[in-house]
Amino acid sequence: MIILVLNCGSSSLKYQVLDMKGDNDFDLLAKGLVERIGLDMGAVSHRATGKDKYELEKPIPDHTEGIKTVLDLLVDSQWGVLASLNDIQAVGHRVAHGGETFPVSRLVDEEVIAGIERLCELAPLHNPANLLGIRAVEKLMPQTPQVAVFDTSFHQTMPDYAYMYAIPYKYYDKYKIRRYGFHGTSHKFVAEKGCELAGLDFHNSKVVTCHLGNGGSVAAVLNGKSIDTSMGFTPMEGVIMGTRAGNVDAGLVTFLQEKEGLDANGINALLNKKSGFLGVSELSSDSRDLVNAAAAGNEKARLVQEMFYYGVKKYVGAYAAAMGGLDMIIFTGGIGENDYLTRREVCKGLEFLGVEFDEAVNEGLRGKDQILSKPTSRVKVALVTTNEELVIARETKHLVK
Amino acid sequence: MIILVLNCGSSSLKYQVLDMKGDNDFDLLAKGLVERIGLDMGAVSHRATGKDKYELEKPIPDHTEGIKTVLDLLVDSQWGVLASLNDIQAVGHRVAHGGETFPVSRLVDEEVIAGIERLCELAPLHNPANLLGIRAVEKLMPQTPQVAVFDTSFHQTMPDYAYMYAIPYKYYDKYKIRRYGFHGTSHKFVAEKGCELAGLDFHNSKVVTCHLGNGGSVAAVLNGKSIDTSMGFTPMEGVIMGTRAGNVDAGLVTFLQEKEGLDANGINALLNKKSGFLGVSELSSDSRDLVNAAAAGNEKARLVQEMFYYGVKKYVGAYAAAMGGLDMIIFTGGIGENDYLTRREVCKGLEFLGVEFDEAVNEGLRGKDQILSKPTSRVKVALVTTNEELVIARETKHLVK
Repeated sequence: MIILVLNCGSSSLKYQVLDMKGDNDFDLLAKGLVERIGLDMGAVSHRATGKDKYELEKPIPDHTEGIKTVLDLLVDSQWGVLASLNDIQAVGHRVAHGGETFPVSRLVDEEVIAGIERLCELAPLHNPANLLGIRAVEKLMPQTPQVAVFDTSFHQTMPDYAYMYAIPYKYYDKYKIRRYGFHGTSHKFVAEKGCELAGLDFHNSKVVTCHLGNGGSVAAVLNGKSIDTSMGFTPMEGVIMGTRAGNVDAGLVTFLQEKEGLDANGINALLNKKSGFLGVSELSSDSRDLVNAAAAGNEKARLVQEMFYYGVKKYVGAYAAAMGGLDMIIFTGGIGENDYLTRREVCKGLEFLGVEFDEAVNEGLRGKDQILSKPTSRVKVALVTTNEELVIARETKHLVK
Repeated sequence: MIILVLNCGSSSLKYQVLDMKGDNDFDLLAKGLVERIGLDMGAVSHRATGKDKYELEKPIPDHTEGIKTVLDLLVDSQWGVLASLNDIQAVGHRVAHGGETFPVSRLVDEEVIAGIERLCELAPLHNPANLLGIRAVEKLMPQTPQVAVFDTSFHQTMPDYAYMYAIPYKYYDKYKIRRYGFHGTSHKFVAEKGCELAGLDFHNSKVVTCHLGNGGSVAAVLNGKSIDTSMGFTPMEGVIMGTRAGNVDAGLVTFLQEKEGLDANGINALLNKKSGFLGVSELSSDSRDLVNAAAAGNEKARLVQEMFYYGVKKYVGAYAAAMGGLDMIIFTGGIGENDYLTRREVCKGLEFLGVEFDEAVNEGLRGKDQILSKPTSRVKVALVTTNEELVIARETKHLVK
């Protein structure tokens, strides 16, 4: 089954075309990125497997035009991979926020669209963009079934005592303020793949998954179900990220507001866009730059790296306590897959939990599924590469079938 | 050495008079409370050890008048305990915020007063009141040495990666925004006493102290030094408290501000005074009421209790990871000392850390130093009663000597 996977942002869209033979048996036919939608000049980058990369600049006024460009490329005689658009049997969308409405993926119909629309309030930057993508496909390929896969669904199994905040209860009723968590498809995917890699039974295991990238979150996956995660009502909470602060004292938020004369929007922008790695290092939001700078003696780069390692380590401990034990720690995401220092430093000192980390295997390792603990280690540690598009394609295939 | 211990709030003052023979050898001579200072009618409650309680209502316009009333009572022929005020050899003050200026207790002089004054910005409700108390004693007993004991000092040993927030670095320089932590005298006192009780070497131990009361915080005490604690820049962060929310997503703070039209002060009041036990239960800020309500089937009381237990449990796990292991868990404070359910539920599921909790010993136990783990338990658990006044008197004695 050939599936087009779409991840629409407010001014960009990422896509992959996968030929799904089985859940783990698939061919990636093409992938690409459309950027600067709605600006004067848009940019398209496309590559069909086995062919050269194709790049193009042209104005792309809206998501419909962006998706039309992608579809044209997919059936292009030179750059394409499909004989006809009819070969695409389904389209799977990554949708940011499913709230409490969507604990599982859904075939798109008017009811689902209305649900995603209602949730725009909780994800004002992302859900509207996802909807634009769904509407565009509806227009361009009206006969093709679409599936919405939500970034929040996997975490809907959290118990109430893990997802509620201790603010007046009425705000849960009124605005649905609670912990939702994000990166759900990734946490689920790597937890399952990691268990397989380590010979653990996914449905009878205590796993902490660390999805660490420009955005990052940690999840406690007990017997195959998420029971807690570090991102909360918004993707700002939790570990330190590229430009996001992660956990802060709410008293600090209001103190800074008063002192700096910032309204809610102002402080929100500060904590989302000027904080994290960038804010502390005053250098870069990219952890690779910080690794280099710290090695060269930059004290603030050293500091924020240590803050990051320490924050993730504390989540590992907290979630082990939450699950009543620990069988496995999994690293994924841009940093988790590529920065061996992060993996080593997070695991340092966790010997008391039964972690025997293999520094030699870990050192320098990038982007490859690999057990990182010694064979005698009671708690397994692994690098597991994530593939959110594959999860979306899988879910799409199951629902369309 | 006879020491007067004072804990001045904005409209109240608590006091104790202790005769310190040794660090652990002392007599409590008198204690009491002055309330409603500055209001139309003030209230005094005083008891000398071995005598009846004495209560009085009279206008108490300011802290000087409040302390004068206390001093008069201490030498009163009927209600007093001292022949002369000259018997008081020193006065020890609890001071809320010592910032980075005061990592240890200090003999009060003009420099110390100026330092406490400068820190009023970080503790606008508490430091000014503490200063009023110091000034009043200066006026009434000009020859008597005074000592300031800071609630933050014990946590000044935190490493930078534990105390920094991932916000722009300049705000640390400009406003000294960082984690300070509070309840320092209590965490130090119970960690030391708990180690003694369990036969551990305080200076070679990994201890998590849970000071749980109307305000609450958890600390990681490694080899006798605090390396992390749950309260942060303000006493709002961390575990759920009577009316304080504890940890929340900063994105939630700004979302609520926008939706409810609240300025920084408004949301601050909401998170400090209308949240926590009270906010979720919609019933009471007193955990005793919630225990009863939950037992009677109140679902929101059940919920916030479980949120509270779960939050403390996660800190235990996080701090074990931070210290690279765990030797002891200590419960203290109003809830920690008196609510056996909290102790039991926090320890439930921590067997993987080496905790063997003795439910029979724990059940119903209140306000008594007691090991709560089984003799075979690798990790010790204990109820340890706190005594912040004793710590203040000790520190005062050491500095005055």
